[in-house]
Amino acid sequence: MNRMVSRLPLQLLLIVVAGVLGMAVTAMSQTPTGPEWWPSEWGPDDERGAANRLTPAKVLEAARLIERGDVYQLGRDYEAGMPLFGNRHYSLTIPGLPTGPAMGSNQIVYNDEMVSGELGQVGTQFDGLGHVGTRVGDELVFYNGFKLSEFGDTYGLTRLGVENAGAFFTRGVLLDIARYKGLERLDPAYVVTIEDIEGTLRLEGVEIREADAVLFHTGHGQLWMVDNDAYNASHPGPGITAIKWLAQKKIVMTGADTSGTEAVPGENPDRPFEGHQWLLGRNGIYNIENLDLSALAADQVYEFAFVFAPLKLKGATGSPGNPMAVR
Amino acid sequence: MNRMVSRLPLQLLLIVVAGVLGMAVTAMSQTPTGPEWWPSEWGPDDERGAANRLTPAKVLEAARLIERGDVYQLGRDYEAGMPLFGNRHYSLTIPGLPTGPAMGSNQIVYNDEMVSGELGQVGTQFDGLGHVGTRVGDELVFYNGFKLSEFGDTYGLTRLGVENAGAFFTRGVLLDIARYKGLERLDPAYVVTIEDIEGTLRLEGVEIREADAVLFHTGHGQLWMVDNDAYNASHPGPGITAIKWLAQKKIVMTGADTSGTEAVPGENPDRPFEGHQWLLGRNGIYNIENLDLSALAADQVYEFAFVFAPLKLKGATGSPGNPMAVR
Amino acid sequence: MNRMVSRLPLQLLLIVVAGVLGMAVTAMSQTPTGPEWWPSEWGPDDERGAANRLTPAKVLEAARLIERGDVYQLGRDYEAGMPLFGNRHYSLTIPGLPTGPAMGSNQIVYNDEMVSGELGQVGTQFDGLGHVGTRVGDELVFYNGFKLSEFGDTYGLTRLGVENAGAFFTRGVLLDIARYKGLERLDPAYVVTIEDIEGTLRLEGVEIREADAVLFHTGHGQLWMVDNDAYNASHPGPGITAIKWLAQKKIVMTGADTSGTEAVPGENPDRPFEGHQWLLGRNGIYNIENLDLSALAADQVYEFAFVFAPLKLKGATGSPGNPMAVR
Amino acid sequence: MNRMVSRLPLQLLLIVVAGVLGMAVTAMSQTPTGPEWWPSEWGPDDERGAANRLTPAKVLEAARLIERGDVYQLGRDYEAGMPLFGNRHYSLTIPGLPTGPAMGSNQIVYNDEMVSGELGQVGTQFDGLGHVGTRVGDELVFYNGFKLSEFGDTYGLTRLGVENAGAFFTRGVLLDIARYKGLERLDPAYVVTIEDIEGTLRLEGVEIREADAVLFHTGHGQLWMVDNDAYNASHPGPGITAIKWLAQKKIVMTGADTSGTEAVPGENPDRPFEGHQWLLGRNGIYNIENLDLSALAADQVYEFAFVFAPLKLKGATGSPGNPMAVR
Repeated sequence: MNRMVSRLPLQLLLIVVAGVLGMAVTAMSQTPTGPEWWPSEWGPDDERGAANRLTPAKVLEAARLIERGDVYQLGRDYEAGMPLFGNRHYSLTIPGLPTGPAMGSNQIVYNDEMVSGELGQVGTQFDGLGHVGTRVGDELVFYNGFKLSEFGDTYGLTRLGVENAGAFFTRGVLLDIARYKGLERLDPAYVVTIEDIEGTLRLEGVEIREADAVLFHTGHGQLWMVDNDAYNASHPGPGITAIKWLAQKKIVMTGADTSGTEAVPGENPDRPFEGHQWLLGRNGIYNIENLDLSALAADQVYEFAFVFAPLKLKGATGSPGNPMAVR
Repeated sequence: MNRMVSRLPLQLLLIVVAGVLGMAVTAMSQTPTGPEWWPSEWGPDDERGAANRLTPAKVLEAARLIERGDVYQLGRDYEAGMPLFGNRHYSLTIPGLPTGPAMGSNQIVYNDEMVSGELGQVGTQFDGLGHVGTRVGDELVFYNGFKLSEFGDTYGLTRLGVENAGAFFTRGVLLDIARYKGLERLDPAYVVTIEDIEGTLRLEGVEIREADAVLFHTGHGQLWMVDNDAYNASHPGPGITAIKWLAQKKIVMTGADTSGTEAVPGENPDRPFEGHQWLLGRNGIYNIENLDLSALAADQVYEFAFVFAPLKLKGATGSPGNPMAVR
Repeated sequence: MNRMVSRLPLQLLLIVVAGVLGMAVTAMSQTPTGPEWWPSEWGPDDERGAANRLTPAKVLEAARLIERGDVYQLGRDYEAGMPLFGNRHYSLTIPGLPTGPAMGSNQIVYNDEMVSGELGQVGTQFDGLGHVGTRVGDELVFYNGFKLSEFGDTYGLTRLGVENAGAFFTRGVLLDIARYKGLERLDPAYVVTIEDIEGTLRLEGVEIREADAVLFHTGHGQLWMVDNDAYNASHPGPGITAIKWLAQKKIVMTGADTSGTEAVPGENPDRPFEGHQWLLGRNGIYNIENLDLSALAADQVYEFAFVFAPLKLKGATGSPGNPMAVR
Repeated sequence: MNRMVSRLPLQLLLIVVAGVLGMAVTAMSQTPTGPEWWPSEWGPDDERGAANRLTPAKVLEAARLIERGDVYQLGRDYEAGMPLFGNRHYSLTIPGLPTGPAMGSNQIVYNDEMVSGELGQVGTQFDGLGHVGTRVGDELVFYNGFKLSEFGDTYGLTRLGVENAGAFFTRGVLLDIARYKGLERLDPAYVVTIEDIEGTLRLEGVEIREADAVLFHTGHGQLWMVDNDAYNASHPGPGITAIKWLAQKKIVMTGADTSGTEAVPGENPDRPFEGHQWLLGRNGIYNIENLDLSALAADQVYEFAFVFAPLKLKGATGSPGNPMAVR
């Protein structure tokens, strides 16, 4: 555990210490094991998880929401100086400028970009099913019971790679929790409850249906590139209780204008990011983070076609992206 | 020019030599200059080009094509060993495996991916308006007359960056030229003509409209990861004559199952990639390459909603992607 | 094991298969365990290994060999197209060209280089003590018994990082085995014996002493950038028997004009690279590969000051380098 | 100039503004042009510069200084969190951990490191002759009059690449200016004068000779990884007057425990880094930055064998390194 701790913000460090001191005994009994976690409802070989819910009927349901022809881009710019987690980095340079000098009698020139970084886990980022798992005994277990000792590979995961997720063209719902609470921006420590979600749905006049993408507007995204330290330190979002309630709704994806969607820290400070385990690991439900939801919230667009196809980075744990909401 | 030549395949080298020897005099008079090239029809400050044609009405036109709820992913896997141009590279590794070891009483673990490469110009790749320009005298001139000496920056272009393109939700048309010619795969040297396009449209019973994304199925994509040398050496596609005809149709994007969309070499071997100059530089029309169009062609889907949002890589020349065709 | 096999040259694959089929029973008893391997003679906390032999007296012994003032660079150029192992890559671009445009009334400009790659393990490469280990039960055990489960960290090893090795200013010996065998280049399958080494030393009139760096000239380096496939496929070098004999001489480092120094395959095809385990893991003796020893061999320089300081890449497994032989 | 300014610390920005406003007229006449700058004394094709002074006699002079057998490493650790200039980055991860899982009956495992960054210009860094040049009219002119328009290449410089520098085994001199001034650490704004150097030499009882490597101990290195902002903001060092005096001594290299060796800002705030132009561009004298000179200074070692071989990164502008002082 030492290895990890040194890389994390102080706040998370305290969470971990609390967990180790206070919860060690009960922890073991809560560690996910056995048939209630695995295998997946889509069979022991399934690598797509909740994306299996994306039927043609769902596509048509989403398409019918497109009434005005307005397209909202939900992805943020990838750029130097954006908030990053831990030791991750992002670098972009233009080699050569131009990369390819004038050629031919038409004197064509061209530019490329050289990029390096933890690409599926910086900026707007989509978590695939190979991103988060759980240590169970000596094994690291992921969605559908797949063990990292069997599918982990230095040059890309041989199972659960993000290329398995497929394309998402589904109904999206925006939960503007900030509006519901009468705030521009939720307190960074606020844990969203089931009641908050139900109240927000009533206020917005929408419901959550199977295979929906459910996005949380917390207002925390206002700190992006404005106060990166505050953006990273902690953030509001649904706690594990609300996450479990959402999972029961059989949605396909969560997302938010924060770096983790679920509250950090959450309801149980000794169990960091356990919502990720529940969503990705237990239910095969995807998650997308660091969205820009400000325009959707401003326009009070609460129901829309949510459209996103992860890059097919073979064997990757996630993908950068620029999802669309179309209304 | 020496600098460039050494990096290119032999075939392109011959093209360039031919151009230098035979065409030097006429070249100057053909080099694009003056008002017939610049400025853009959308005004002297425009950085979006043909994406300005993406109106709400066009979105609705595209949405109406979604009748069956079928989604086709047109992007290829990004992976080691895929065909690459010149010195470009692509590398993906999983740091740590797991990247983040077990933490908390919930024993969460996670993986990231470390990626490096010329990211907007490897694999399935979308060309932004900062990708291709033309040397005119001492200046390198891009879309709308913007000069690289003014917008070029080591850490990302300050104009024409791909983040300006926005999201594409528009009508897509597949031109299955291979089927029209009665072939599984066009000859790598074949230059598609206006007549080919018109004949294909008749056969398919569709038309090209303003703001469409027009994709060429040549069958050349069958060589991807099967015979990479052949895939890269040359490929079929529209020549400059057909490209100009397409541009007059005021489309928003071209694309193909090849690395360059336009024929390589084209009609004028001394003018490599001049279709790129005409599309991107003169008309602000985008281009997407290395698509997998095999399923669309097999299902004879010739008209569909084409949906793609480039990654907002600030200042980048292009973007990787996984466009969708929805029917 | 599947994970690894798919990345290796066919030849190594056959080695592994042979090992799995034929040797599985005996393997366990030969797996290094217990006190004959660990701990190090320099104490249970030692992370420097044989570099502890680099005393001031040894530095002076080396300095006394400098009689002519001739300096030989033993490092190769790092460049696109050089032989690489498995999936490793190396990329260098000049961002911007210039990276920093004209500034100040003095109109200064500057260039940088953007590099990515498995840097301590491409081209001329120095193996640190965190590079190679041995699976023993559930643990991966390295020099001095350190377990990867305890010192492995995604962002750099917390023990045995190459920054611990320190600088090498010691006596170097060139063993020109090719000359001894009367060949320009040893057969790629040739395994160098103790007798070869003794014969070569007699021919050259030198001896091996404690703390020496011992370099093998096999002539195989003539294939570098000339026939990379042949360079990589297999190569001559000392077998495990000669490696053990060398280790008894208490040298500080081996090196060669090949990618692995030890013969690949070696004496026991089912035990790939076991010389690395013996040198690095058991004895803390370093190793440097892909050297250019042609000039030393041509000038018959068999004894010299060997000077090399690894880059202090904190937590790295190795280092690129350009060692010197000074005479 | 806008492009550059936005990336630089505020302090440098002010320097540049001052230069533009106040000095524009005189600047042109001071811009280096003509025969007093070029060509090199080693002929019009020379790419090695002052390294031509590294004769066998000089090697022997340096070797004779090795009397005690003590080796000092002058390189710093490369690590996350080290001070970096502008947008440069450095990233190191261990792919896989282990990178290569257990193989063969000997159950060998191995680790690599994935590194990305502006490698010759981060951390301890050696400036080659392709690093700094001067805009003269439309050309960017480097050492020996080579024009970047002719030797610049996206994938590495075709002239003046750091692989031309060769290995340095020469006499080193430490100028402990901090001790001379009676300070632990010079003021960040202090500009070292000729008188300071002469006084320091007298105090130390040494002299500067042709082909020496001359290193400045300012004490500023105490801020490294302690107060990176202060380390980067500005630093002491020789001004252009002292730099020119040093160049007349026909030395081979300067170096310091700062990021720029020369004072930043220097004597003429509108002429940033003009010492680099004089050393590298005019005189072919190399420079190495971000050294750790604390042990040499503490031990009062003022004369030593300085040993360093840049990595032969083909076409690179510089090299990382870990130079040695041997006494």
